[in-house]
Amino acid sequence: MIVILKENINQEQLESLIQWLESLALNVQKIQGCGQTLLSLLGDTSGLDIDLIRALDIVEEVKRIQEPFRRSGRKFHPQNSILDINGIKLGDGHFQLIAGPCSVESEEQICGIAHAVKAAGAGLLRGGAFKPRTSPYSFQGIGDEGIRLLLEAKHQSGLPIVTEIMSLSQLPLFEEVDMIQVGARNMQNFELLKALGQLRKPVLLKRGISSTLEELLLSAEYILAGGNEQVVLCERGIRTFSNYTRNTLDLSAVPVLKSLSHLPVLVDPSHATGKSSLVPPMSLAAVAAGADGLLIEVHSNPPCALCDGQQALRPEEFHGLAKKIQCIRACLNEGSAGDGNV
Amino acid sequence: MIVILKENINQEQLESLIQWLESLALNVQKIQGCGQTLLSLLGDTSGLDIDLIRALDIVEEVKRIQEPFRRSGRKFHPQNSILDINGIKLGDGHFQLIAGPCSVESEEQICGIAHAVKAAGAGLLRGGAFKPRTSPYSFQGIGDEGIRLLLEAKHQSGLPIVTEIMSLSQLPLFEEVDMIQVGARNMQNFELLKALGQLRKPVLLKRGISSTLEELLLSAEYILAGGNEQVVLCERGIRTFSNYTRNTLDLSAVPVLKSLSHLPVLVDPSHATGKSSLVPPMSLAAVAAGADGLLIEVHSNPPCALCDGQQALRPEEFHGLAKKIQCIRACLNEGSAGDGNV
Amino acid sequence: MIVILKENINQEQLESLIQWLESLALNVQKIQGCGQTLLSLLGDTSGLDIDLIRALDIVEEVKRIQEPFRRSGRKFHPQNSILDINGIKLGDGHFQLIAGPCSVESEEQICGIAHAVKAAGAGLLRGGAFKPRTSPYSFQGIGDEGIRLLLEAKHQSGLPIVTEIMSLSQLPLFEEVDMIQVGARNMQNFELLKALGQLRKPVLLKRGISSTLEELLLSAEYILAGGNEQVVLCERGIRTFSNYTRNTLDLSAVPVLKSLSHLPVLVDPSHATGKSSLVPPMSLAAVAAGADGLLIEVHSNPPCALCDGQQALRPEEFHGLAKKIQCIRACLNEGSAGDGNV
Amino acid sequence: MIVILKENINQEQLESLIQWLESLALNVQKIQGCGQTLLSLLGDTSGLDIDLIRALDIVEEVKRIQEPFRRSGRKFHPQNSILDINGIKLGDGHFQLIAGPCSVESEEQICGIAHAVKAAGAGLLRGGAFKPRTSPYSFQGIGDEGIRLLLEAKHQSGLPIVTEIMSLSQLPLFEEVDMIQVGARNMQNFELLKALGQLRKPVLLKRGISSTLEELLLSAEYILAGGNEQVVLCERGIRTFSNYTRNTLDLSAVPVLKSLSHLPVLVDPSHATGKSSLVPPMSLAAVAAGADGLLIEVHSNPPCALCDGQQALRPEEFHGLAKKIQCIRACLNEGSAGDGNV
Repeated sequence: MIVILKENINQEQLESLIQWLESLALNVQKIQGCGQTLLSLLGDTSGLDIDLIRALDIVEEVKRIQEPFRRSGRKFHPQNSILDINGIKLGDGHFQLIAGPCSVESEEQICGIAHAVKAAGAGLLRGGAFKPRTSPYSFQGIGDEGIRLLLEAKHQSGLPIVTEIMSLSQLPLFEEVDMIQVGARNMQNFELLKALGQLRKPVLLKRGISSTLEELLLSAEYILAGGNEQVVLCERGIRTFSNYTRNTLDLSAVPVLKSLSHLPVLVDPSHATGKSSLVPPMSLAAVAAGADGLLIEVHSNPPCALCDGQQALRPEEFHGLAKKIQCIRACLNEGSAGDGNV
Repeated sequence: MIVILKENINQEQLESLIQWLESLALNVQKIQGCGQTLLSLLGDTSGLDIDLIRALDIVEEVKRIQEPFRRSGRKFHPQNSILDINGIKLGDGHFQLIAGPCSVESEEQICGIAHAVKAAGAGLLRGGAFKPRTSPYSFQGIGDEGIRLLLEAKHQSGLPIVTEIMSLSQLPLFEEVDMIQVGARNMQNFELLKALGQLRKPVLLKRGISSTLEELLLSAEYILAGGNEQVVLCERGIRTFSNYTRNTLDLSAVPVLKSLSHLPVLVDPSHATGKSSLVPPMSLAAVAAGADGLLIEVHSNPPCALCDGQQALRPEEFHGLAKKIQCIRACLNEGSAGDGNV
Repeated sequence: MIVILKENINQEQLESLIQWLESLALNVQKIQGCGQTLLSLLGDTSGLDIDLIRALDIVEEVKRIQEPFRRSGRKFHPQNSILDINGIKLGDGHFQLIAGPCSVESEEQICGIAHAVKAAGAGLLRGGAFKPRTSPYSFQGIGDEGIRLLLEAKHQSGLPIVTEIMSLSQLPLFEEVDMIQVGARNMQNFELLKALGQLRKPVLLKRGISSTLEELLLSAEYILAGGNEQVVLCERGIRTFSNYTRNTLDLSAVPVLKSLSHLPVLVDPSHATGKSSLVPPMSLAAVAAGADGLLIEVHSNPPCALCDGQQALRPEEFHGLAKKIQCIRACLNEGSAGDGNV
Repeated sequence: MIVILKENINQEQLESLIQWLESLALNVQKIQGCGQTLLSLLGDTSGLDIDLIRALDIVEEVKRIQEPFRRSGRKFHPQNSILDINGIKLGDGHFQLIAGPCSVESEEQICGIAHAVKAAGAGLLRGGAFKPRTSPYSFQGIGDEGIRLLLEAKHQSGLPIVTEIMSLSQLPLFEEVDMIQVGARNMQNFELLKALGQLRKPVLLKRGISSTLEELLLSAEYILAGGNEQVVLCERGIRTFSNYTRNTLDLSAVPVLKSLSHLPVLVDPSHATGKSSLVPPMSLAAVAAGADGLLIEVHSNPPCALCDGQQALRPEEFHGLAKKIQCIRACLNEGSAGDGNV
C-alpha cells in the first residue's frame, strides 16, 4: 500500500502516523520526492481500514497494491476451487447446468421438471420456495411447503437441490438443502453471510445488481472468513440505463472474476435478461466466455407459471440448448484462448 | 390498468383471461380497435401481479394506470404525514436536523457531540453502533455497547436517537431507540421490513444505491402494510458512472417523492458525497429542493474518527451551516414555488 | 399509438386535438372507459412528435405501439440485410473478422499487420488515421497520411479497409475508403449522419457509450432516410458503474438488435474491455450470442503501439482466436437456438 | 506522476523507459521498495499520454498526481474567471439567469418571451434555431431563420443571445450570436471544439449525459488550448438507471467543478428533469449549491410549444422563481459555507 502525503505537512503528525502503522506490524518506508512524501507499507495490509487512513489530515491519497480479498483471491490460492455439492462437482473444468422453475408450485410441477431437466443434462435442480418480491402485494412463494416439495423432487430424481434463503431465521429449514442461494438483494446482508460462514455447506452467492466485482468478492470473503470454503459466485445482470432487457448481463465479469479468484463462476441469463427468447443466445455466450455453469429457468408451461414465466424455457428448448452448450465447450477445450483464465 | 393484447389471438384464451380477471372483483371492459384489442381493468388492481399477466401468451403489454403503492402514495392519503419521534415532529413543515458521528466510539465522544449538535439546532442525535462494512476486515462498530452509549447521550442531552439495525436478531436491543434506521443495503431485506411493520415506532428507510423511487416506495409499503405508519424516506445517493463523489446525490428525488407520497423525505449529504467539503453546499441544495430534514455526520475530531471521518463536519462547521439552512427555509416559506409539492 | 387522456377534460380541447390528429391522416378512435378516455391512433405515426402530444394539457400519457424506426426496423424489411463492402459480404450468415491496429503508424506497420490478419482469416482491415481523444494533449492520429498508408496496405493485401471519420470536412479524404466508421462519440452528430446518408458507401455505426438501442437505431435511421442502405451496427461497450473493464460490453444488445432490425450487428471487444486478456473470451461470447462479425485490434508489437496497446492482440493470438471462432460458428449452425434471431 | 513497475522486470527495459522519460524533460526518480520499484516523474507531465505508459510490459499501474487540465484547472489560474458576454458579466459572484424557449418559433413568440424574461430579471436570452433530435422524423428547428429572429429579439429587448451550434459548417451564421452553445451530444465533437478555440467569443459547453467531470474539463481544455478563454460549463443531468426524471441532475458537480476549475458553472434544470413542475425546486437547489447561473426554458404557452413544452415555465412562474432565487443568493452571501468554492 502506498500512502501519498500532502505537501508541507506537520512532521509530528507524520511521525505519529508512522508509529501507528508500525504498531500494526507493517514495514513502513518513507520516500522523499521533491516536495512530495510517500509512505510505502509492506506486510499484511488486508485488515487495514483504507478509509481511516484517507481521512487523516496529512494524507492526500492511498493506493492499495495488494488485493483486499485474501481468501477469495488467487494470490494465496492459485489453483481453481472445486465444489462438491452432494456428489456433483463444480469448478475447474467441471461444468454444471442448474435448472428448474422460478417458483415451486406443486409436487407434480417440480417433480416433472426435475425429471425433464435431468434427462436434458442438468446436474442440479433449482426452484424458489421463498421469493423476494419488490411489492408486498406480489406472490411471495409457497414457503416451507416449497422446501418440502423440492426435497421430494430430489428424492425422486436424484438431483441435488439449490434454493434461496431470505433470512437468518429460515436457516433451520435448509438443513437438507444441498446448496443455499443468497440472492442479489441480500449480497450485502452481512449478518446472513456471517451465519453462512459457520456452515460447511455450499453457498451460491449472486452478485447484487449494482455491486462491483470487488464488492462481490468481499461478500464471498465474509463467508470464507468464517471457514466455509464452498462458495460459488454468480453473475446475474447489473442495473444500467439500458432498458430492453431487465438488467444488463455483464459477461466480462466471468473472465475477470476467474482471473481474480479461484472460486467457480456461474451465470444466470434468465434473471439478467428477463426474456426467454434471449436465454439461449446469452447462455451460449456465457459458456463461450468461460462460465463454470449456468442457472436456467425451466417450466413445463411458462405462460401459466406463477412467477417470471416470461423468462422460462420449456423443457424441449432447454434440451436443444444443452446440446449446443456441449458443442461450444468442446471448442473451448481444444485450446486455451477462451478459457477465462488468461 | 390497461392490457394490450396481441393480434389474432385465440378467443377462448381471451374469454378465460376475462373470467379470471372478473373473479378478482375487477370490472373488465373489452375495447376493440382495428386489429388491436385492449382490456381496461377497473377496481383495485394494487394486488394484481403485473408480471403474471405480462407472461400470458396472448398479452402484448400491460400498462398500470393506478399507482402500485396505495398506502405510501398520495392518492388515498393526500395530506402530508407528520411523524412524532418521542416528541419531535417531522414532516409537513416540521424540519429537523439529525446529526452525530458515523460511529459511536466512547461515552465522552457521543455525549460531547450530542451537546454540541443540540446547541447548533439539531432535533435528533444519530450514531452507528452496528456498521455494515463492505469488507469483513473493516471496523464493524462497537455493537451493543454503542446502543448503551447512545441511550446515555440521549439521557444527558434530551435528544431522541436514531441508529441503524442490520438484522432481525438485533431487534430486542432497539427497544429504547426512538427511530430505527434501515440502511441502503437492507432496503430490500423484506423479512426485516415485515418485522418493522409490526412495531409502532418510527422507521427511517434509506434508498438503496440502485433503487428506483418506485422500489423505495414499495419497500416503505412493506412497513406500512404491517400497520406501522411512522416511516420517513431518505435519499443518500445513487450509484452511477460519476466518480468524483462516492455516490451521486439525486436531489430530484425530493420533489418527486413528495409529489408521489405523503411521507416525509430526508437527505443524507454526508454519505452521498463522502467528502466533508461537499456537505455544506449539498445540504443547502437539499433544503432548497424541499427536504423535510437532513442527516449530517458531525465529529469533534474528524481526522481521528474510526469511520468515515473524511465526510464529517466539525461542530462549529455544523453550527454555521444550520444558520444558513434557516435562512433558506425562510426564503421557501415566502411563496410556494420551491416547496417540493408543486 | 394510444393517447391516454386526463380525467375531466375540456371537451373543446379534446375535439380540437382529434381534428388535428385527423388532419395528419390518422384514423382516430375515441374509447370511453369509466372516467378514463383513450384515443387510439391508426395509420403512419412514425413522423409524429410524441413529446409534442405528451406536452398537451389534456394528455396523461402516450404509448407508442408501432416502432419509431421504419427503415431500420424489421417490420417493413423482415429479411436480413447483406452489405457488400467492395466484394466482401457481411450479414445474414456472412460473418467477417475486421482486424488491425488502433492507429496507423507507418507503412511497414500497417502493411505487415494487413498481411498477418489476412492470413489468419480477416475479411477487412481496420486502422485509425484520425483519433478522437479525450485530452487535447494525447496523440491524435497521423491524419491524411494514415489514410494514404491504409490505401497502400489495401493495395498490397487486397483487404478492403475501414477507418473512422471525425468531421464532415474530412469526407473528401474518404473517397477510396471502403467502409466509413462513425465512432461512439459521433453517434448523435446528426449533421454528419445526414451527410453519410447521401453517400452510397457502407457505414459502420458504433453505439454511443450511453445510448439506448432505440437511439442507436434512430441514428441508423438518419443514414437510411437519406437513401444509403449500407449500414452495419456495432456494440462496443456502455458506461456503467462497473470499473474492472473500460466499459461494460452489453452482449444482449446483439440478439435484441437482430430481432428489432434487419441490419448486421458487429461487436468490438477490444474497445469495450480495454484489456487484451479479455478480448479472446469476449470475442467467443459475442460470436456465440449471434454477432455477424467482430472488430479486433491487432498489433505486431502491442507494448510499442502509439495508442491503446494494452488492448491489442498479437497476430499469433488473433490466429488462434480465429480458429476457435470458426468452431463456435459451426456449433450455432447445427441448430437455431443461438442464432440471435429467436 | 508515479509509475508503479511490475516485479522482477528486465533492467534493460527499465533503463530504456527512464531514458525516454528524461528525453521528455522530466525529472525521473527511481524508488526501490521491497520487490517493488516506483518511478516518480516530476516536471510538466500534462502532455504525457498516460495510456501509452500503461501499455508498457514492465508497468503495473500509473498514477497521475498532477491534474491533466492545466488551462481549465485552478492550479495555474487560482482566481475565478469572469466572462463578458456583450456587456453582461458571468462568474465570480456575477450570477445570471439565461431564459427563453426551447425552440424559436416566430418573431412574435421570441420577442414576447424576450421582453417577459428581461422584466423578470434574466440577463441573457436563449432559444434553439438548430435542434439536435434523436429521431430524423422529429421537428429539427427552423434553422437560419431562427438565428435571424433571435437577433431581432436581441435588438428589441437588448438582451445578448445564446443558441446552439450543431456543426462546423453553421459557424458563419453565428457571427452576431453573443454566446455559442455546444450541446451535450457534441461535447466530444473535437473538431468543433478546436474550431471554437480559434474564436474570441464566449462558449457555453454542456456536459455530455455520460461524461465524467474530468472529460468535461478536458473538452473545455480543447477550447482553451486554442486561445479562447471565454468558456462556461453547464451541468444538465446525467444518464442513470433512475427513471422518474429524464436525466439525473448531478448537483454535486457544481461545487466539485468550482473547486477543480476557475470557469463559471451553470445548471440547466429544464433539460435535466424534463418536467416543468421540477424546475423551480431544482433551480433553487442549484443556486444553493453555488451555481453561477441557470438556463431555464420559458414559453408563453407551454402546451403549444413545438418542442419540449412539458418542461417550460410560463413567464409568471419564471418571475416568481427569480424572486426566490434572489432571496437564496442573499443567504449564501451572508457567510461562506455554501458558496461552492470550499
